[in-house]
Amino acid sequence: MINIAIIGLGYWGPNLLRNFNNNERCNVVKVCEKNPIIIDNFSYEHKDIIFTTSLDEVLNDKNIDAVVIATPISTHYKIAIASLKKGKHVFIEKPLADTIKQCESLISLAKKNSLCLFVDHTFLYTEAVNKIKSISSKKDFGEMMYYDSTRINLGLIQNDVNVMWDLAVHDLAILNFIMNDKPKLVSAIGHKHFTSKPITTAYLTIKYSSNFIAHINVNWLSPVKIRQTIIAGSKKMIVYNDLEPSDKLSVFNKGVDVIANNKSNSNNLINYKIGDTYMPNLKNKEALSLAVEEFLRSIYSKLSPLTDGTSGLNVVKILEAANISINKNGKPVTI
Amino acid sequence: MINIAIIGLGYWGPNLLRNFNNNERCNVVKVCEKNPIIIDNFSYEHKDIIFTTSLDEVLNDKNIDAVVIATPISTHYKIAIASLKKGKHVFIEKPLADTIKQCESLISLAKKNSLCLFVDHTFLYTEAVNKIKSISSKKDFGEMMYYDSTRINLGLIQNDVNVMWDLAVHDLAILNFIMNDKPKLVSAIGHKHFTSKPITTAYLTIKYSSNFIAHINVNWLSPVKIRQTIIAGSKKMIVYNDLEPSDKLSVFNKGVDVIANNKSNSNNLINYKIGDTYMPNLKNKEALSLAVEEFLRSIYSKLSPLTDGTSGLNVVKILEAANISINKNGKPVTI
Amino acid sequence: MINIAIIGLGYWGPNLLRNFNNNERCNVVKVCEKNPIIIDNFSYEHKDIIFTTSLDEVLNDKNIDAVVIATPISTHYKIAIASLKKGKHVFIEKPLADTIKQCESLISLAKKNSLCLFVDHTFLYTEAVNKIKSISSKKDFGEMMYYDSTRINLGLIQNDVNVMWDLAVHDLAILNFIMNDKPKLVSAIGHKHFTSKPITTAYLTIKYSSNFIAHINVNWLSPVKIRQTIIAGSKKMIVYNDLEPSDKLSVFNKGVDVIANNKSNSNNLINYKIGDTYMPNLKNKEALSLAVEEFLRSIYSKLSPLTDGTSGLNVVKILEAANISINKNGKPVTI
Amino acid sequence: MINIAIIGLGYWGPNLLRNFNNNERCNVVKVCEKNPIIIDNFSYEHKDIIFTTSLDEVLNDKNIDAVVIATPISTHYKIAIASLKKGKHVFIEKPLADTIKQCESLISLAKKNSLCLFVDHTFLYTEAVNKIKSISSKKDFGEMMYYDSTRINLGLIQNDVNVMWDLAVHDLAILNFIMNDKPKLVSAIGHKHFTSKPITTAYLTIKYSSNFIAHINVNWLSPVKIRQTIIAGSKKMIVYNDLEPSDKLSVFNKGVDVIANNKSNSNNLINYKIGDTYMPNLKNKEALSLAVEEFLRSIYSKLSPLTDGTSGLNVVKILEAANISINKNGKPVTI
Repeated sequence: MINIAIIGLGYWGPNLLRNFNNNERCNVVKVCEKNPIIIDNFSYEHKDIIFTTSLDEVLNDKNIDAVVIATPISTHYKIAIASLKKGKHVFIEKPLADTIKQCESLISLAKKNSLCLFVDHTFLYTEAVNKIKSISSKKDFGEMMYYDSTRINLGLIQNDVNVMWDLAVHDLAILNFIMNDKPKLVSAIGHKHFTSKPITTAYLTIKYSSNFIAHINVNWLSPVKIRQTIIAGSKKMIVYNDLEPSDKLSVFNKGVDVIANNKSNSNNLINYKIGDTYMPNLKNKEALSLAVEEFLRSIYSKLSPLTDGTSGLNVVKILEAANISINKNGKPVTI
Repeated sequence: MINIAIIGLGYWGPNLLRNFNNNERCNVVKVCEKNPIIIDNFSYEHKDIIFTTSLDEVLNDKNIDAVVIATPISTHYKIAIASLKKGKHVFIEKPLADTIKQCESLISLAKKNSLCLFVDHTFLYTEAVNKIKSISSKKDFGEMMYYDSTRINLGLIQNDVNVMWDLAVHDLAILNFIMNDKPKLVSAIGHKHFTSKPITTAYLTIKYSSNFIAHINVNWLSPVKIRQTIIAGSKKMIVYNDLEPSDKLSVFNKGVDVIANNKSNSNNLINYKIGDTYMPNLKNKEALSLAVEEFLRSIYSKLSPLTDGTSGLNVVKILEAANISINKNGKPVTI
Repeated sequence: MINIAIIGLGYWGPNLLRNFNNNERCNVVKVCEKNPIIIDNFSYEHKDIIFTTSLDEVLNDKNIDAVVIATPISTHYKIAIASLKKGKHVFIEKPLADTIKQCESLISLAKKNSLCLFVDHTFLYTEAVNKIKSISSKKDFGEMMYYDSTRINLGLIQNDVNVMWDLAVHDLAILNFIMNDKPKLVSAIGHKHFTSKPITTAYLTIKYSSNFIAHINVNWLSPVKIRQTIIAGSKKMIVYNDLEPSDKLSVFNKGVDVIANNKSNSNNLINYKIGDTYMPNLKNKEALSLAVEEFLRSIYSKLSPLTDGTSGLNVVKILEAANISINKNGKPVTI
Repeated sequence: MINIAIIGLGYWGPNLLRNFNNNERCNVVKVCEKNPIIIDNFSYEHKDIIFTTSLDEVLNDKNIDAVVIATPISTHYKIAIASLKKGKHVFIEKPLADTIKQCESLISLAKKNSLCLFVDHTFLYTEAVNKIKSISSKKDFGEMMYYDSTRINLGLIQNDVNVMWDLAVHDLAILNFIMNDKPKLVSAIGHKHFTSKPITTAYLTIKYSSNFIAHINVNWLSPVKIRQTIIAGSKKMIVYNDLEPSDKLSVFNKGVDVIANNKSNSNNLINYKIGDTYMPNLKNKEALSLAVEEFLRSIYSKLSPLTDGTSGLNVVKILEAANISINKNGKPVTI
């Protein structure tokens, strides 16, 4: 049985608490949270768990095998590195850390101490994203053409990270998961609508070595909530609407061929193929419970998890480049 | 009565023919079209109109007061400049011409010869766009924050212009129409999925002097057709879905305030306002018939039309800058 | 070449004129229309057709082989019977006539004179309805369970027929087309919201000998336009949304099994099957052109058309029963 | 402080437990549930509550002031009458009881013993339904024309009641709440698709003394979940989509006038009014918490609650009539 401590019970922490609590291969023994009012609310229903405001109490508790970090991003590195030093496995909310350098330190320390470093890119544990990967990697999908994602809503405007680090991070994890090719350069542009707050509206475009382009539109100031992604191959195209309760994926048997011809400028050389559309049935298993399962499996098996430190690093690499590009109004930055 | 000649009966020409034909203040006397099969189809139902394959026959016909140019974009300038030289008013499909320089020549010649130069930015004659202008220019809309447009579908891939010059041109005309502020710089990035064809997928972001940003997503390779634009103010936000048969506009009484405070990083200083949504009733008058009306009115009154040469030039200025930016993978270009 | 006369250029007549005009196997030679203003509008563009306000002129014209009747329903019988007497084939708008008796007279006279009697149940010529028939008649669709249709909108309130005879008529034709079983009884209930007008809102329920029930909701007073039909089998279910530009049909691999068991009241004996959904690609061929084609084919081949007099009669049988039921507030009436 | 016992922790019971638990004016002291596995699951997180499988233990506990009955409908009457006899206030899930007679007994005993009898018609505590009532009762809504509701989904097929008693019950409560007029007669028709199960598919139509008609379509065998109701006045019309996360109500400024005229059959006497649509902002307060609040308020104030026994009886009156009509294939039954 693995003994777990949860650190942070803000927005996402309660979901982690619930999922680790429900897993039979581990035991949540401690929770660390700075806000005593939150502790009051949760301790009432969780009499078997020790609640504390002291991080050190958790780190120094030799009984604890693994920590689950759900604190503000700016604190990720500090808490994670301290935990690894104390010999604890680390499950950390996305993104892994603030900078490439920090990510690399975490990876190297985890490796040295033979500990599991897990970053919670939850979307990679959804059936929708796994279905996208399996459909798009088949031959009849054709060549990957583009990924175009709109991830916008009203709020919650963060204080310590801009909208890319909050929302685009999901798309970057998905992209790295489904693409074999590596990103080459990123051009990003954004706007800070409130001087005292981070950038609320941003657009990232990523070019790859192959014939593939990715575009991500993230915004905290949209009147409507949209979670729509198009993943287009040359022979099939997927529309992924994450707000649909079921039927999240529509797979279109549509494509475009340009047939080589001597008179290369003539219109009739384009062939639009249009066929049936289908929506694969997806199970409703909570992705977070599968992420928790993968983390525990990785500790037991000593095999690297799907979303390991490197996976977290690869996302931060793009975000760091995008930050530089944003400061230069879209100037492309090599990744 | 103004005598009209239509030049080009391809994709859009038949709509122009029908609308000029239905207008009682003018007379369509000639149609010039290179393809004799198309002439055959139309001449049967239009026995009063002379059809010809010769452009010169039109240009040299002193009986013709105005020409309507609906030919491929690359030919716009040549035909328009020749028509203006012959003393004919010019109604021209969007975009006005291929380059800023060409636009400027047309404007200057039209002015010199006291002729009307009209560019068909049809959207500016829709009730939807006029409603957006009137709602967004009122005080209770707050400060203009952003314009975000998605204009994607499968086909029709053009041969002589890239997807921006075909689709983004609509958004640029709308933007120039509803914004008081001028664009400052553009970052654009796109991809050519077929070597023998122009760019099929492009993303433009435009920064303004004010606290405003515009983003346009255009794509000829999307499995779904989307025509959705968000125009967000700090106090109200509009979603414009042009594919809705009615109720194209949803006006959200939503907004975000960030209240000035000493502890400027605290989350509770953001105030999300959420109120009723309403969908103004829009008349279904065909926009093109109003464009035709405006062109004729301008000839009679000798007053500049809403979509005059300068309006066409201002759109081409952004497109030319975007082309440069695209070639440099998003590097920002001053407009 | 079959010579055609169109009678009536009201709401649907122009579509008939266009489709008969475009068909190469026939010739529209005359059009009869009482309203001279309408004649003026159409005669301008159709110089080869003779327009007349006199029905007799059409009926007595021996050159005319077939008449196409698109007049108000209350005049269908009179015009059709006169035409059949004069030896002309008849294409008639739905419904065939006002009463069962009238339908039977038409069928019998057509048969006697060896003429084609065709009723324009256009929906049977759409690819959507044919796809429904083919999917629902396959074994893996399971047993047909129900048909539930909502066909509502604002207007056009008719003067001579109630909303069932205007809208439900489509569903009844579809039902007769896709069902092998015959309707047994109908219960209908409706309301006349305006004293001087026919019933504007009606609900029909039809029971069959088999384990099948049909329900039709028709309304001229709905703020939203809906054309949605569910066709449910025990193993698959179809949702048919006729307002979708493409993807009109969604085929759900869903079903319910109740497994026989000793403890017959236990909840766990129900088995809900949920699988993929798919949307077959449908061609966009105009249904009316196929109806015209079928009419002409039937004249040439002397074989009965798909939508012959009997097909029209079977729809009127249900409508007549429904009328009786409506007058008795839903009392079931045997068909 | 009012001491509460919850009876039944099946489908809805846990929501009642949570809401009574969260209310500060009462104390959940006991829960009665027959299934020991369910007790195990809940007792772990509710250490302060006594769980029992014995109903008598609850009824004989003098410390308990009120019982909350969430058991199968067929047991409602027996448990409620026993509770009232023991002097306990009663909160009961909808519908109140199986028959009119049972409802009347409950009402009369509650009155005699001065106890609160509350039926949980939860929808009457939603902001959406209250908004519908307030909009539709205003003069500018015009005359009430019709109510048309579709409440369909796949499952959960019940064992002890048919689909009307499970789903239509909501619409009947809403109808009685928003209508001033009383129902006059009902015609209902339905089908039992599985011999060992109750009717799964039913259609009810209700006529009123006034110019108003109501129609309810309920179905446990639909591949899609729909919760859509149209409430139409002669000057405004509401579409209520309960599945929308926000913007559940669309209020259409649409209507139809038939202008009195000598030539009463002429089409141009109908006037279709079409104006703006608006979607009122609705708060997301959980309806059940307001129902609980109303129950407790009623006990404290000794004033009748909004959803009292009579409210429950009026719904059962229609259901009982509909059952009779269904057995006669739609024959109208006076209410």
